Amino acid sequence: MNNQKEYVLGVDIGGTNTVFGLVNRNGHVKEEITITTDAQKGAEQLFSRITDRIHSVLNNGITTSSIKAVGMGAPNANYFKNTIENAPNLGWKFVDVKKIFGQYLAKPLFITNDANASALGEMHFGAAKGMKNVIVITLGTGLGSGIIVDGDLVYGHDGFAGELGHVCVIPNGRQCKCGLNGCLETYVSASGLKRTVHELLAKNIGESILRHNSIEDLEAVHIAEAAEKGDAIAQEAFEFTGKMLGISLASFIAFSRPQAIILFGGLARAGQLLFEPTIRHMNNHVLPLFRDKIDVIPSGLHNGNSAVLGAAALAWHGLERS
Amino acid sequence: MNNQKEYVLGVDIGGTNTVFGLVNRNGHVKEEITITTDAQKGAEQLFSRITDRIHSVLNNGITTSSIKAVGMGAPNANYFKNTIENAPNLGWKFVDVKKIFGQYLAKPLFITNDANASALGEMHFGAAKGMKNVIVITLGTGLGSGIIVDGDLVYGHDGFAGELGHVCVIPNGRQCKCGLNGCLETYVSASGLKRTVHELLAKNIGESILRHNSIEDLEAVHIAEAAEKGDAIAQEAFEFTGKMLGISLASFIAFSRPQAIILFGGLARAGQLLFEPTIRHMNNHVLPLFRDKIDVIPSGLHNGNSAVLGAAALAWHGLERS
Repeated sequence: MNNQKEYVLGVDIGGTNTVFGLVNRNGHVKEEITITTDAQKGAEQLFSRITDRIHSVLNNGITTSSIKAVGMGAPNANYFKNTIENAPNLGWKFVDVKKIFGQYLAKPLFITNDANASALGEMHFGAAKGMKNVIVITLGTGLGSGIIVDGDLVYGHDGFAGELGHVCVIPNGRQCKCGLNGCLETYVSASGLKRTVHELLAKNIGESILRHNSIEDLEAVHIAEAAEKGDAIAQEAFEFTGKMLGISLASFIAFSRPQAIILFGGLARAGQLLFEPTIRHMNNHVLPLFRDKIDVIPSGLHNGNSAVLGAAALAWHGLERS
Repeated sequence: MNNQKEYVLGVDIGGTNTVFGLVNRNGHVKEEITITTDAQKGAEQLFSRITDRIHSVLNNGITTSSIKAVGMGAPNANYFKNTIENAPNLGWKFVDVKKIFGQYLAKPLFITNDANASALGEMHFGAAKGMKNVIVITLGTGLGSGIIVDGDLVYGHDGFAGELGHVCVIPNGRQCKCGLNGCLETYVSASGLKRTVHELLAKNIGESILRHNSIEDLEAVHIAEAAEKGDAIAQEAFEFTGKMLGISLASFIAFSRPQAIILFGGLARAGQLLFEPTIRHMNNHVLPLFRDKIDVIPSGLHNGNSAVLGAAALAWHGLERS
């Protein structure tokens, strides 16, 4: 039986904002609070502000002892070591999260990166409920991923497995900020889609609504709107994005044969514009043994709580496994 | 404590021959017997011959009760269902292995494909001893793989995960017998190497020892010998093969971040001809986070017992997990 009076604290640390809240075993979010991260003031100051706010919302219904664990999603967070190391968006070189956070709230603590937390969020509360083998792809400015095999996240030897944004899809292809070329995220992400549009605008001479945007001003949502209005360049850009993603998903299926693949994040909201070509190319490029057997589905955490639910799922998952 | 008087029966079913033997927990092979598979006579006849031979070698030292389990590596074997289904090399449509084999030897039975069995063989008795995250690539006529994550094989949703021979390395590339194009095994395997040589012979006009072989007569070992003698075409073929493999390994690392990758099988015996370009291209194409951190090593099961040791490891592994 789930005890609905038991909660975990889910914390999602982003470059700009940090969101956190108390979440029970059924995924009910009791409190959700957003504060600025102010990363330059350091991790300890942030952790102090988070726990101050949490203590201030505790009342007769929920006490400190109602909080069973803390789950945290953060860039470059290491599940094995409970550290955040060399996180470029935060400017933090090394943070011993367990030690520092524990000074403010002494509970079992589990941390991982945000894409891994999202994958557990989908498995516990979202579109992957009841599944034991699933891949979650997060499509934002970049491409993140969380891979679940046999009911647990794939962390690999050092805790940093599941970096599917950096598999090579086109040898010697587009330059990636990771230092490599041809990475999946240079094609399949909001920024990849923009690069594709500008490549197509350079290659073709046809009219397009999108000719009037600089690469800086162009947003994925504009491209989706243009495609919906029948703009050929925008439509071709989604076709190409879906092809790159579909071919890659086919390879991921050969690797871990998930029951389903879940697309999460801003770009996934483009709906059929992205899903239709992705699924078509995936099935054209997957081993016949797997053809038409793997579902590609949108996130089941599309409300605003998804980041907190992911972090909370990590905590509940950790408690169950420990 | 390992009881050295306890054994498992390891069975490797191949298209031509079937090899089996009794193996104790330390990987000591007590008996190893090779018989013809004669697949056209059916699975039951084969299983009967295997168990007859095993019963005939039991003596005062080893009795039926010394045999704790059976592990079997076979094409298209399904770990979850204990079946062999649609195995092209055997011509078997559907074999309920647990049921039929159990009539002859009633012991716990574990089956999987030969590449998965090899991976467990490496983990229990070979080059991956003590490792919990490892990828084993078998390089024969084709390319097989067994992926170990957190100490266990990745079977996926239906038992058929780990088909890395069929990830796409060159979209619209070489035709593969699976029906797809550009699969890794069309480039990286004994047959892929031969195709590369003939492509290079067609492209270049330089002299080469290999011009005198038809694609049918050419063997990987001839190409390796030619490369050792300084034949430029043969050397370029290994360079290209290593590049395709290295780029692919870089993607596999992004997926599951193994501690090591093990190359097993005939082509892996080409040694530095294959390993040097593979490792170089892998490190040039892997996320900087993982660069120079993943070992690529040859199989530790290079004696003749490797197939039986793999199947036996599956049985010991299964007993420990159950």
